[in-house]
Amino acid sequence: MKRICLIATGGTIACVPTENGLSPELTARDLINLVGCETDGITISCTDLFSMDSSNIQPEEWCVISAAIREKVGNCDGIVLTHGTDTMAYTASMLSFMLSGLPVPVVLTGAQYPAIYPNSDGRRNLCDAVTAASTLPGGVYICFGGSVILGCRAVKTRTTSLNAFESINYPYIATVSDGKCVMLHTPKPKVGFSYSASIDPRVALIKIVPGMSPQLLDCLKDIGMKGVVVEGFGLGGMHNFRRDHTESIKKLMAAGIPVVLTSQCLYEQSTPDVYEVSRSLSEVGVISAHDMTTEAAITKLMWVLGRAHDIESVRRIMNTDIAGELTEA
Amino acid sequence: MKRICLIATGGTIACVPTENGLSPELTARDLINLVGCETDGITISCTDLFSMDSSNIQPEEWCVISAAIREKVGNCDGIVLTHGTDTMAYTASMLSFMLSGLPVPVVLTGAQYPAIYPNSDGRRNLCDAVTAASTLPGGVYICFGGSVILGCRAVKTRTTSLNAFESINYPYIATVSDGKCVMLHTPKPKVGFSYSASIDPRVALIKIVPGMSPQLLDCLKDIGMKGVVVEGFGLGGMHNFRRDHTESIKKLMAAGIPVVLTSQCLYEQSTPDVYEVSRSLSEVGVISAHDMTTEAAITKLMWVLGRAHDIESVRRIMNTDIAGELTEA
Repeated sequence: MKRICLIATGGTIACVPTENGLSPELTARDLINLVGCETDGITISCTDLFSMDSSNIQPEEWCVISAAIREKVGNCDGIVLTHGTDTMAYTASMLSFMLSGLPVPVVLTGAQYPAIYPNSDGRRNLCDAVTAASTLPGGVYICFGGSVILGCRAVKTRTTSLNAFESINYPYIATVSDGKCVMLHTPKPKVGFSYSASIDPRVALIKIVPGMSPQLLDCLKDIGMKGVVVEGFGLGGMHNFRRDHTESIKKLMAAGIPVVLTSQCLYEQSTPDVYEVSRSLSEVGVISAHDMTTEAAITKLMWVLGRAHDIESVRRIMNTDIAGELTEA
Repeated sequence: MKRICLIATGGTIACVPTENGLSPELTARDLINLVGCETDGITISCTDLFSMDSSNIQPEEWCVISAAIREKVGNCDGIVLTHGTDTMAYTASMLSFMLSGLPVPVVLTGAQYPAIYPNSDGRRNLCDAVTAASTLPGGVYICFGGSVILGCRAVKTRTTSLNAFESINYPYIATVSDGKCVMLHTPKPKVGFSYSASIDPRVALIKIVPGMSPQLLDCLKDIGMKGVVVEGFGLGGMHNFRRDHTESIKKLMAAGIPVVLTSQCLYEQSTPDVYEVSRSLSEVGVISAHDMTTEAAITKLMWVLGRAHDIESVRRIMNTDIAGELTEA
């Protein structure tokens, strides 16, 4: 008998229509009763953490969610976390770092359409997630639209279709249907479970566009940011004349604020070492995100800033694969 | 005999190795000589505008490029513009607005690897672009990796693969190979060629992440921004409690700074009208980008701010399809 814990946090899957638009109101038990996925061989215990649109999930909620998971890890064979899709990839990434080396699977799922709607994807997604949570090795995953993605490699790429998430720069973990989970790729196991709720949310994301004023980077120190992720062009380029972003990044690094460089291209890795225009970024010490998603880079930097306080320590941990988020050189 | 103008601006296609990394140094004539695409039935005249890594292309360069195109429009059957890939989608979008209703095709192309390298994609891309420029109807396009994409619908999604660009929320225009261009979709023709170099680059892009300080939005007025594009979660959500982005957007709009809402999901449209948490964004008057790419939304807002000076005029033009960038409701 597999013991699964369902932790509900709201999201579209739990939504009902209200006069102000859709609002998440179904509980974990409501969802289980609606879906009927408590089959022979699986018992499900339910926990309601909160009932939120995931657009409002913030670092404070990540602390609540990770603490709840930690509490349940020793008493079950797998955990399903229902969550809105909008920030699910960010939450999955952050949980991968806060709960590294998990001995049981934590499977996030949700829906593009409320589970109470006749053609909703929510009922299938929840059943699939329960199947995945009884099958997968330890770690954080997203199960959605019949696919299982490593949590720290997921990106929401579609606003409305049922295959809302993609696995970026990493193989899909499994496919799930009709109560069967077929493994496609088994991530390298991480040894040693460790939990840390110490994260620093004072991280800014700057996506560069042509003509962007360097003042946007220059003001980050004044508004108290402790780390910055920059989405450059292509392999990681940005202006270095007329509007000199390299100079602004140099000033941030000199002030002890680490700057992580990623790409605004969805697929494939970034590297600032190929072109003359981006070599100068390497020279000022920018930290490359390599093939991490922006979601992983942002949450990892928040998590790293919870334990490292000088740029070289931040660089060392950012360059180390913690949960499968990074293909090490 | 088709008369094609080749305008060169630098980019990887024109790169040669230097001690500081790759640097764009080949001229338009160098490229034509290297590629040998001046076949029977096609004459090519060459113009070198500048020789830049496209990470440094800025609104000032867009004015130079658009003026050069305007000068040549009456004297040729098609224009090929070689350009770095990093900002090619932004340039293609902006040219679509600055040169709306073009009577001849303007086809942007470039390469992921320098044209002088043995296995470069640059030689094929340039030949394909010349073919496309002798075949397509008027408008701005990107021809890359054998596909033709409407300029204002293109996004660079891959940092290194040869199929670097995708057509977002819009059909591919054509495929090109071996000197043949096969049409897949003909965009609705726009009547009346109009040229305008009046654009305002004081536009910021803010991509929301969980925990983002509203101060980042609050500081935009102080650093002189005249318009803002926000990439929200999913259909266009963002925090409205603890860190209240809606309140910050309301303050920007009240100060006469239009805020355009798009999605950080690559595919499919955004709309702030579905969820309770984003209804409040509609109420404060945020302008929806609907199914425009971020590249189109940013450049269109710069272009609109060159001609409209109150929020309702900006809204009206942002909601009007100018070049195929927007599926009107």
